[in-house]
Amino acid sequence: MLAKHYLANVTDIKFNLFDVLQVTKLLEFEKYKEIEADDISMVLETAAEVAEQELAPSYAVADREGCTFKEGQVTIPKSIHQGYQLLIEQGWMTVGLDSEHEGQGFPLVVATAVAELLTGPNLPLSTYFGLTEAVVDFIIAFGTEEMKKIYLPPLLAGKWSGTMVMTEPDVGSAVGDLRTTAEKKDSSYYISGTKSFITAGAHDMTENVVHIVLARLKDAPPGIKGLSIFLVPTYRPDQEGSRGEFNDVICTGIEEKMGLHGSVTCSLAFGEEGKCLGYLIGEENKGIKYLFRMMNRLRIATGLSGLTLASTAYLNAREYAKTRIQGVKIQDFRDVNAPRVPLIEHPDIRRMLMLMKSRIEGMRALLLDTSYRLDLSNTHPDEKVRGLNSDMVDLLTPICKAYVTDHSFEITSLAMQVMGGVGYTGDYPVEQYMRDIRVASIYEGANGIQALDFLGRKLPLKKGKVFFNLVAEIDRFIHKSLPHSLLGRELSLLGKYLNIYVNGVAEATGLGMGLLKLQRQTTANVGSVRWLKNLGNSFSALVSQFYRELSVADYDFKKLSLVATPEKAALHAVGLVEITGDILVAYALLKHALVAVKKLTEIRQEMKVPENTPWIEFAKESETAAYYIGKIESARFFIHHCLPRILALQVTMASKNSTILDLPIASF
Amino acid sequence: MLAKHYLANVTDIKFNLFDVLQVTKLLEFEKYKEIEADDISMVLETAAEVAEQELAPSYAVADREGCTFKEGQVTIPKSIHQGYQLLIEQGWMTVGLDSEHEGQGFPLVVATAVAELLTGPNLPLSTYFGLTEAVVDFIIAFGTEEMKKIYLPPLLAGKWSGTMVMTEPDVGSAVGDLRTTAEKKDSSYYISGTKSFITAGAHDMTENVVHIVLARLKDAPPGIKGLSIFLVPTYRPDQEGSRGEFNDVICTGIEEKMGLHGSVTCSLAFGEEGKCLGYLIGEENKGIKYLFRMMNRLRIATGLSGLTLASTAYLNAREYAKTRIQGVKIQDFRDVNAPRVPLIEHPDIRRMLMLMKSRIEGMRALLLDTSYRLDLSNTHPDEKVRGLNSDMVDLLTPICKAYVTDHSFEITSLAMQVMGGVGYTGDYPVEQYMRDIRVASIYEGANGIQALDFLGRKLPLKKGKVFFNLVAEIDRFIHKSLPHSLLGRELSLLGKYLNIYVNGVAEATGLGMGLLKLQRQTTANVGSVRWLKNLGNSFSALVSQFYRELSVADYDFKKLSLVATPEKAALHAVGLVEITGDILVAYALLKHALVAVKKLTEIRQEMKVPENTPWIEFAKESETAAYYIGKIESARFFIHHCLPRILALQVTMASKNSTILDLPIASF
Repeated sequence: MLAKHYLANVTDIKFNLFDVLQVTKLLEFEKYKEIEADDISMVLETAAEVAEQELAPSYAVADREGCTFKEGQVTIPKSIHQGYQLLIEQGWMTVGLDSEHEGQGFPLVVATAVAELLTGPNLPLSTYFGLTEAVVDFIIAFGTEEMKKIYLPPLLAGKWSGTMVMTEPDVGSAVGDLRTTAEKKDSSYYISGTKSFITAGAHDMTENVVHIVLARLKDAPPGIKGLSIFLVPTYRPDQEGSRGEFNDVICTGIEEKMGLHGSVTCSLAFGEEGKCLGYLIGEENKGIKYLFRMMNRLRIATGLSGLTLASTAYLNAREYAKTRIQGVKIQDFRDVNAPRVPLIEHPDIRRMLMLMKSRIEGMRALLLDTSYRLDLSNTHPDEKVRGLNSDMVDLLTPICKAYVTDHSFEITSLAMQVMGGVGYTGDYPVEQYMRDIRVASIYEGANGIQALDFLGRKLPLKKGKVFFNLVAEIDRFIHKSLPHSLLGRELSLLGKYLNIYVNGVAEATGLGMGLLKLQRQTTANVGSVRWLKNLGNSFSALVSQFYRELSVADYDFKKLSLVATPEKAALHAVGLVEITGDILVAYALLKHALVAVKKLTEIRQEMKVPENTPWIEFAKESETAAYYIGKIESARFFIHHCLPRILALQVTMASKNSTILDLPIASF
Repeated sequence: MLAKHYLANVTDIKFNLFDVLQVTKLLEFEKYKEIEADDISMVLETAAEVAEQELAPSYAVADREGCTFKEGQVTIPKSIHQGYQLLIEQGWMTVGLDSEHEGQGFPLVVATAVAELLTGPNLPLSTYFGLTEAVVDFIIAFGTEEMKKIYLPPLLAGKWSGTMVMTEPDVGSAVGDLRTTAEKKDSSYYISGTKSFITAGAHDMTENVVHIVLARLKDAPPGIKGLSIFLVPTYRPDQEGSRGEFNDVICTGIEEKMGLHGSVTCSLAFGEEGKCLGYLIGEENKGIKYLFRMMNRLRIATGLSGLTLASTAYLNAREYAKTRIQGVKIQDFRDVNAPRVPLIEHPDIRRMLMLMKSRIEGMRALLLDTSYRLDLSNTHPDEKVRGLNSDMVDLLTPICKAYVTDHSFEITSLAMQVMGGVGYTGDYPVEQYMRDIRVASIYEGANGIQALDFLGRKLPLKKGKVFFNLVAEIDRFIHKSLPHSLLGRELSLLGKYLNIYVNGVAEATGLGMGLLKLQRQTTANVGSVRWLKNLGNSFSALVSQFYRELSVADYDFKKLSLVATPEKAALHAVGLVEITGDILVAYALLKHALVAVKKLTEIRQEMKVPENTPWIEFAKESETAAYYIGKIESARFFIHHCLPRILALQVTMASKNSTILDLPIASF
């Protein structure tokens, strides 16, 4: 196993922040007035160095060592302790924290970029770190002043750590069914219940673990509207804020898992002796409301953990493909004396690398863009802008979680395929990336649940207007950028796929009619609505005819008013996440490519490179030029080789086949 | 970990053998005249019982124990020794062996079905078993009479075991570049060289390991045409055929891997002391020819190992989905008092299960069908039929290997997704299935290499006529079956996708013009060629128009004569395997569904079930009816929910985008 397995992509992160999102504009806001652009560059470069040099070496070690459970005590690898203390001491937990809580006050989008760099080298370590960060955020957002005073200092000092405690043995995705209770006696709450699959729930790394626990008050309403949230430390704080009395929280076992061996997954029993005190956060029975507000960040963070492993998997595979000599060029296959070439000269290896590269760049853009919108939703001076961005974050979050984790896992697997047999061995990090990241599609809300959230809660947000704004934004981008000599064809293809996509959403959700109505009311507000007008143009008619011929004899393209039943729509929920993600990735990649084209022109002029110089020559002259050329190719490749998938998913939706809903269970 | 993790699907295997392939017809051939249909049922049922009861329990145990390498000695788990001896003692190695070698003489298609059942419960164990079987086959096919006399008895008795030895440290997919040498002195050959990634290359389970080694004679021509094959035992046989003198083959290390922990992967050094004797098999420099003949079987076996893990993963996930209660039906989501239901009541869970079920059934059909054709190619009395089937096996083999292993891995991952968090733990077998089967896409010829084989060697076989025969067979099936009251729409959709598929192949390979020419010459021989005539019909024109509009301005559908360059075609090789596999799966599923419809009618009549009884009621009456209903649904689901992917791959091919071939390496 290569100790320094992690390869950071600071170039692409900086391109996103400075050249695409123009994050320096944020620095004009009052809140960030102390931050300068150079500070951002500095924090990114330092994070990358810490990641590659200090966090990476223990990644495989901790995996082989694993966690143990003996006589009620959990032991986790010592290298995790050390990595955690390093992160704390160097101040990485306070990057995105407000200065009033002694944070460094960077915008969230910068904190997200830093988190990509710090998560990738050691995902198990980052679970402890990220959960504590989440608990800190939660206490700052919803805790009492006393809680802040007592809990924040030891958490931020790395003396205590935190966890979020939801799942129970019989309750995975159906959060509303959980049974852990809180009983009020005098003014205190006593917690009682069993929780399972609790990451970092108990360990020997910090002297106390602070749990944010979802529980139900006796006599609370059933379902999610009867849940409250409690802060439950394993040891109660004493008068001085030090670790005091034991609070009746015990670990009853840990899970043996496919991966994440350094990250302990616990079963916890709260209040077996009836002595587990919980401290209510916010109001009774409003737990789910607070939780929802936290979830956007946790879900983006989960997507990010996928992205960063996918990115380092790609960069490892790329290095291998550049150096490993294997066979001759395919056009030389009959010539036994032809020169042997590196893997990267083989077309199928290039295809796999570009599949990885393009989607990674698109997903990184999506996550950073969503974080940027989160910043705007928090800090923009104009309330309307804050609201629009807050809505957009809500819409995009399930895509950030589900689409990104699913594709990240696939990318780690593609990296193994590029590397061949050695990729399957423990000598390289890729097999561990695969094992570690697979669970990201399951935890923090399984991806099927994310898809239902997208379909059932997010698409209909404000009667579809939020979704409508997103489509209109992409449409404006396309029409603003056309005609374009280099990427005109790809831009216009994106427009065509956007139409098919909107039609797909309309098919699956019955949003169509609502959108058409909305259009009449709001044309003035949302700018260009060409995508809607296109519904009637010749291309759409063609698609319609194609569908009719292909699959649905009685299908009338104009008639979008049929609202699908929830169960029929649910059948396409994951498909909708997929095509939405594809559209967002394509949009981001084209946006990046247009910036890259401009940058290349600047470099050409600066370096006085003649205009007709082929890329292959230009790339030799300048590493930066090579990077921009790669950005253009990512867009082109994704549009031609990946985006057509939208057709397939759309044809499936248009088929209206849902017979499996009625299939007898015995027939599976 | 559930000891009895393996769930066999004997029902579906029998349906394939008896109802679809009508394997009893084979029993009319002279070669199989001693076999009866009941023998086949019996051997399948016994294999399933041995698999579930005796081979499965050590699966997880051996994984946790793993193999060790110490002072040159390899130790493998004791449970593997025991399982191996059990398989030998019960005679499982001789199922498909001819009676002249004391085999049981079952047709290969039956041996394949048995292998599915014996491989699934314990893949690591089956690697030792399968490699020894392959060495036995190899010796029978190409060895001298003396080799047969000396080596077959101890191999078949489980005293010795076998391996295939090809890969070297610097040579993965480029077999022609290997460097192990054979030097002729007097009439003996001395082998010298280093081999890596040798499964079962050295261990403590048998007293001798017999290697089939690919090596190059000094002064042999370069490339694959200079390779010879040698039989190289670790210990030479003595006069009595017992283990004699050490033959200078040592193990220099073993690999730590993601999975297959019970199956040892060795680095071997041959002839470090100059004393390693190799016994030439066949003629000098003809090694690759013998190897190619072996490869079909090994590749089908590799596909089969994927299929069987996918199948048990599905059946485990299905059991879990039937019993695990979670949440309420989606249509009840606002009703907190609605009854809690098992996972299988949720639409997205049904979708995932059916994705798994339909593809598994299609892949099983493909593997058994190909094995059946292999039987026909060996034993049919008519030479022409033998030839046609032999060609078809050549064409289908890379699909059996690449398509099946890739999708099998995906299916194990889907099984984990259905099971959620518990699927990620070692308490269930699915995470081990995933880890164990991932390498099947890499070894035995990486799937990218399979795709190049399909594109470059198999599609052009006999100037495309073999491919043409396959398409004509599917076309005949469709037209013979139409009209059909229940599956007419699906049959006609398959026909439409078949057109698009043929067009895709033509696009990527330039076979189109050749095919058109061939049609004129051979119409009389190959039966219906409606699929070709359809190229000019309105649907194709529509597709053409659609492509033109969508992506390729200067694209002329009629002009199929452009032969792609090898490197451009190679870019689509994996895509071609994918769409070919999809077409074959859809074809098989519809064939199965039509049989199932007939069977259902028979049951209806027998049980006097009224004709309008809904399936859900009918399925309650009869388990067999439920199974047939499930077969029909598999076909329907695959056609509507999976087959549309062909559109996407075809649009990608039609885009003719291949700019990544010219991308500077620095731009990746």
